[in-house]
Amino acid sequence: MGTLRVPDVVPSPTEDSKALRKAFQGWGTDEKAMIRILGQRNAKQRRKIRDTYQQLYNESLILRLESELSGDFRKAVILWTLDPPERDAKLANEILRKKKKNGVDHLQVIIEIACASSPNHLMAVRKAYCSLFDCSIEEDIASNVTPPLRKLLVGLVSSYRYDGEMVDANVAKLEAAKLRDAIENKQLDHDQLVWILGTRNMFQLKATFECYRQSFGILIDQDIESCGTGDLESILQMAVWCIDSPEKHFAKVVRASIEGLGTDEDSLTRAIVTRAEIDMMKIRGEYYNMNNTSLDNAVIGDTSGDYKDFLMTLLGAKL
Amino acid sequence: MGTLRVPDVVPSPTEDSKALRKAFQGWGTDEKAMIRILGQRNAKQRRKIRDTYQQLYNESLILRLESELSGDFRKAVILWTLDPPERDAKLANEILRKKKKNGVDHLQVIIEIACASSPNHLMAVRKAYCSLFDCSIEEDIASNVTPPLRKLLVGLVSSYRYDGEMVDANVAKLEAAKLRDAIENKQLDHDQLVWILGTRNMFQLKATFECYRQSFGILIDQDIESCGTGDLESILQMAVWCIDSPEKHFAKVVRASIEGLGTDEDSLTRAIVTRAEIDMMKIRGEYYNMNNTSLDNAVIGDTSGDYKDFLMTLLGAKL
Repeated sequence: MGTLRVPDVVPSPTEDSKALRKAFQGWGTDEKAMIRILGQRNAKQRRKIRDTYQQLYNESLILRLESELSGDFRKAVILWTLDPPERDAKLANEILRKKKKNGVDHLQVIIEIACASSPNHLMAVRKAYCSLFDCSIEEDIASNVTPPLRKLLVGLVSSYRYDGEMVDANVAKLEAAKLRDAIENKQLDHDQLVWILGTRNMFQLKATFECYRQSFGILIDQDIESCGTGDLESILQMAVWCIDSPEKHFAKVVRASIEGLGTDEDSLTRAIVTRAEIDMMKIRGEYYNMNNTSLDNAVIGDTSGDYKDFLMTLLGAKL
Repeated sequence: MGTLRVPDVVPSPTEDSKALRKAFQGWGTDEKAMIRILGQRNAKQRRKIRDTYQQLYNESLILRLESELSGDFRKAVILWTLDPPERDAKLANEILRKKKKNGVDHLQVIIEIACASSPNHLMAVRKAYCSLFDCSIEEDIASNVTPPLRKLLVGLVSSYRYDGEMVDANVAKLEAAKLRDAIENKQLDHDQLVWILGTRNMFQLKATFECYRQSFGILIDQDIESCGTGDLESILQMAVWCIDSPEKHFAKVVRASIEGLGTDEDSLTRAIVTRAEIDMMKIRGEYYNMNNTSLDNAVIGDTSGDYKDFLMTLLGAKL
């Protein structure tokens, strides 16, 4: 369940577009009005507002937001206003082409799209990627990521899993053993491993991971960790987390983004914007269980101004 | 270009449904009327007829066709009446689960879907497969096909290529060399090879194959043949043909289906039903070039009755 609050009576897309237009005009921008409108509409409603705004004013709402806003607030509002598949395609492209950060931490965006999204969403992201960037996401992964990581990422991102609960206990047992073999032999890009993680439905994989724990007395992610601390290990672990419990993964992302000196706003924004309509309630719960403190307070403590108000609105706070 | 002939003035879906209903009633079925209607409507129009028929008579048109018709004629009409993604999902499932034939010839259906379809069609087939059969096509490939063939098929079927003309001559040269390496070392399931064939757009791959010919003085499909006559070799060759020239591939399928004693109706039906709306004109041309005789005459010579009339209607003949 998400935390997004849509009012009981939603203004029409035309009313919302007019109110947005008004917020942009005059001296300065009325950020509060913008947050109240965009921050309280679901993806379908935002899509309609974008279309209506374009028709009414012959102007792209996204471009207008870009020129009116700035900083982390701007990034967050724009990501939120884009269609979810387009948004994820852009997030993926940004990290693949710009190679923004060192290490593989930034590749977690790809893992989240591949392993913590519905199969139909992943397909829609691949479509959006091709139309926006004139090549497939797999091609960009391959030009920017070296083997053996490439193989794992391409396998995961190409998946179209059965989107239902269909668990075969024998398969779970058999495939837990195959995963164990690959991990024991430190072959983390073994064909079988990539195939199992990239093909089986989420319920089946959860059953397989549970079987792994029962049969070998160790959690699969811990076992992967024992292979080493390289890039492949951390990415594979992340994939297991995203499959097994996306809410735990995102609670960790939020935590990591505010821990220590300074805040990683990009990660914080990504976690809240991409999950506010999906499972942010559960993420909030997991966050509390892990840290014995509330996610909302953490966000309030580490952000400020319109950026804070916007994130808090997505977290269900009343403005 | 296809051979399907849609009349200039198309009756409404309601008129078509009523005419079909009439054709089913009374003594015997009026096959000619059915052929005239269904055999001269494109996929969208057929979809509307199915929906309208269901609404008007509270009966599935597909089930009614199943009970009214028989033999190869029935198979052809039903495949044609299904939505193309649903049709291909069913064709794939039939050969994967029923293991109808020996050898790997039957796997050509999978190759055709993966390599001779548009990326969006392939995605739609994967979606249809999941909703019809409660598992992904990749899972069924894996349970029914052994490595190394499995790896190649899963790689091809998972692709979502950029659907446009974007050719990089350097990439073509580089990847022709990588393909050559894999083929020379008889590693036909090499990660690189599977990745290149399963990821690059069709225009890029054609350029790469041409580069292969120029650099190494041999066509890539002939070079694959020189590796041996096993299953992997034939499937890989077929993939190259479907990518390089689907019309040649399907001209060969039609030829093979009527050559020798007896006719392979399933293959003949598949080739005509799946390509009548896509590139049957080109297939007809290729067929003539290859065999110095006309495809239409071949079909007329090897089929009879309503089955013949139906196939010929899809080939643009007037009933």
